[in-house]
Amino acid sequence: MNNNIYLDYASTTPLSKQAFDAMLPYLQNNFGNPSSVHKLGQVAQAGLDNARASVARILECDHREIIFTSGATESLALALFGVVGSSKQKTPHIVTTALEHSAVLNSVRQLQRQGAEVSFVSPTQDGLIRVQDVVNAIQTNTVLVCVMLANNEIGTLQPINEIATAVKNKNKDIVVHSDITQAVNYVDIRPQTLGVDMLSFSSHKIYGPKGVGCLYKKQSVKITPLLFGGEQEHTLRAGTENIAGVVGFAVALEQAQKDKQWYNESNKVKTLRDALLNELLKEPNITLNGSLEHRLPNNINITLQNIPAQTAIPYLDSRGVYVSSASACTSHTLKPSYIIEAIGKKQHASNTIRISLGRHTTKQDIQTASRIIRALAQTVT
Amino acid sequence: MNNNIYLDYASTTPLSKQAFDAMLPYLQNNFGNPSSVHKLGQVAQAGLDNARASVARILECDHREIIFTSGATESLALALFGVVGSSKQKTPHIVTTALEHSAVLNSVRQLQRQGAEVSFVSPTQDGLIRVQDVVNAIQTNTVLVCVMLANNEIGTLQPINEIATAVKNKNKDIVVHSDITQAVNYVDIRPQTLGVDMLSFSSHKIYGPKGVGCLYKKQSVKITPLLFGGEQEHTLRAGTENIAGVVGFAVALEQAQKDKQWYNESNKVKTLRDALLNELLKEPNITLNGSLEHRLPNNINITLQNIPAQTAIPYLDSRGVYVSSASACTSHTLKPSYIIEAIGKKQHASNTIRISLGRHTTKQDIQTASRIIRALAQTVT
Repeated sequence: MNNNIYLDYASTTPLSKQAFDAMLPYLQNNFGNPSSVHKLGQVAQAGLDNARASVARILECDHREIIFTSGATESLALALFGVVGSSKQKTPHIVTTALEHSAVLNSVRQLQRQGAEVSFVSPTQDGLIRVQDVVNAIQTNTVLVCVMLANNEIGTLQPINEIATAVKNKNKDIVVHSDITQAVNYVDIRPQTLGVDMLSFSSHKIYGPKGVGCLYKKQSVKITPLLFGGEQEHTLRAGTENIAGVVGFAVALEQAQKDKQWYNESNKVKTLRDALLNELLKEPNITLNGSLEHRLPNNINITLQNIPAQTAIPYLDSRGVYVSSASACTSHTLKPSYIIEAIGKKQHASNTIRISLGRHTTKQDIQTASRIIRALAQTVT
Repeated sequence: MNNNIYLDYASTTPLSKQAFDAMLPYLQNNFGNPSSVHKLGQVAQAGLDNARASVARILECDHREIIFTSGATESLALALFGVVGSSKQKTPHIVTTALEHSAVLNSVRQLQRQGAEVSFVSPTQDGLIRVQDVVNAIQTNTVLVCVMLANNEIGTLQPINEIATAVKNKNKDIVVHSDITQAVNYVDIRPQTLGVDMLSFSSHKIYGPKGVGCLYKKQSVKITPLLFGGEQEHTLRAGTENIAGVVGFAVALEQAQKDKQWYNESNKVKTLRDALLNELLKEPNITLNGSLEHRLPNNINITLQNIPAQTAIPYLDSRGVYVSSASACTSHTLKPSYIIEAIGKKQHASNTIRISLGRHTTKQDIQTASRIIRALAQTVT
C-alpha cells in the first residue's frame, strides 16, 4: 500500500498472513477433491472438516449447522430463498428493514415478484430499528424476520437480541436471520448471544480470502437449497468445495473472534476512530450520519456540505486516502445512498463518504487523513 | 504427491504454477474490492477486466457474455433456473439426458417440482446420445436443451454441434446449453464451433483454483439471476468477486486452450491412456465401459468382474494409485453408478472404477499403475 492510507476496510480487508499461510498447502500439494476416497481426497476432507469444526467452536454450535458458501451474498440468498422455499404458507411474509444491504433488498424484491409479501421497517433518523416496529410488522403469515446486525454504510448496530426475543415471544415459529457481515471483527457473534436462528457473513470482510462465506443455520430450520448436485455441505450446497478458501476463512474467523479478540480490536480501533471523528467535526460543514452510541467502532459516515462524493473521493484518492461513497457494491456508479435517504437525509445522499478503519490503521494514518479531509472540507468555505 | 500415482484428474487437478503465480498479487497487496472507486479498487477491477477479456478471447465472444461464478455447479444452476425463470411458457419443457452430471439432474428435478416438464434422453449402450432422440424429445413448449459435451464417468463425447444444429433447425428459439466441464483440457470449446448458446465449466478441472467457474451466455439469451444484490457480472451474479480465483482461472484456461493447446495435450495423454488400456484389457475380467472412439483421451472406465469398487479403491490407494469409483461428487458413499446403469450395465454399476490421466502423468506412472491394477484383477481369477 506504500504510503497510501486505506480507510475502506468496510469494503474489503487485506488477507491476514496467518490465513494466507494456512491456504498455501491447499493451493499446492494438498489439491485433492474432498469427495475422492483416496488419500489425497482424505487430506482435503480433513482440511475441510477441521475448518468447519473451528468455525463451529467459535459460534458454539454443531458442525452440521455451518454451511460454507461463496460469500455473504450467496449465504443471504440461501437463507432468504431457502426459508421461503420450504415454507408451507401459501403467501409467505417477510419482515426486513429499509437499511439492509442490497443483497437482502434485491433478494426480497425478487421474492415479492414470485408472490411473497414483504414489510420494510423504517429506521429512526439515527439509523436505528425499533424493536416494537419489527414486532408490529409481524403478520399471521410471517415466516422470516431479517435484520442486519451492523449497517454497511453508517455502521449502526441494531438490537438484534431484543428483536429476536420479541419476535419469538410473538411467534416462536418465525425464523430470525441476521446479516452480520460488517460486525464480525467487533462484536460477539455467537448465535446464542444474538438469539437468532440464522447468520450470514463473508470471509473477505474479516481478513480472509474473497469468494468464501458462511451461513449458520440452526438444525431445526428447514431450507431448500439454491445449488443442486453433489452432497456437499450436508446436501444444502452442492459443488466442489473451495478448500483453500474455506481453510483461510476459518483461520481469519479465529483471529477475529477467538478469546474475545473482537473486544480488544473494538477498543483499539474505537480510540483511533474517535480521534479522527473529533478532528473532522471541527469543520462546520462536516456532520456525522447515524447514531454515535450504537455504532461499529471502525465506522465514520459524514456528510460534506456542498461537496459531492463524486468530487471528494477522487480528491482524497489523489492524495493517497482511500475511502468510499456508498457501500462498495454499488459505488461504481456513485449513486445517491439509499441508506442516507432512509434516515431522512435525502438532501445529503450524494454528499456523503464512508471512512472505515481496520486492523492496520495507525495513529499516523489518522493524523494524515484528518489533515487531508479537513483541507477538502475547507475548499468550499 | 511423493511416489504416489494420481489418476483422478477428472475429480480435480493440481493448480498450475502459472495460475498460482498470477493469483499471488491478489492474495497479497492487490486486495482491493473492484467496486471501490479508489486506486486499490481500480487495480482489482483491472485484474478482473483482464481475466474476463482473456476468457472472451479464448471463447471468441464478447466480454459481456462471460459470467464468473463459484464453480460449474453454480454455472449450471444459473443456466437452468435462469432460462426457465425468464421463460414466458406457462409450463416450460427441458430436454436433457440420463448421462448428465448430478448438478444438472438434481437441478432439473427441482425444476420439475416447481412445475417444469423434463424429458431425459437415454444413451446407447456405448454411452452416446443420438441426435434424432434429442430432436424427437422436443415439444412445442421446449425452452432448453441441455446435453453435456463429455461424460464425467465414462468420458463419452457427444455430438454437440450436430445436436445444436438439429435443435435450432426444429426451433431456433430453443436455448442450447452444454456442460463442458470435463472437456476443456482436450476439446475445442469455442461456442461457435460447438454451435451452442450457453456453456458451463469450472476452473479446478483445468489446473485452476477451486471455487471458480464460468458461464458463457450468448447476449441474446435472457436469464434471471440466482444471486441478487450488487451489480457485479453484468447484474447477473451479485457478490464481491473472487479476484484471485478468477485471475488464476483465466490463466489456467489460456494454458488449456490457447494456440490449440488442447490438441497437443489430447495427443500426449491419449498415447499414455491407450498404452494403459491395452495392458489392462489383457486381463479377461476387465472390460471397458463406453465408446472407445468417441471418448475423452484421458479417460478409462472399467468394470472389474467380481471386484466391488469398495474393495478396489482402498486396494489401489494402499499401493499409492489414486483412482475413483463413480464421479467424485457422489463417491463418498460409493453408490452404484447411475451412469453405468443408464448404459444398460446395471450388474456392473458397483464394480466399476474410473482412471483419469492428466498433464503430469508419465510413462512410468502408467507402467506402475498397470502392474498394480492387473495384480488386483488377478486376485479373483
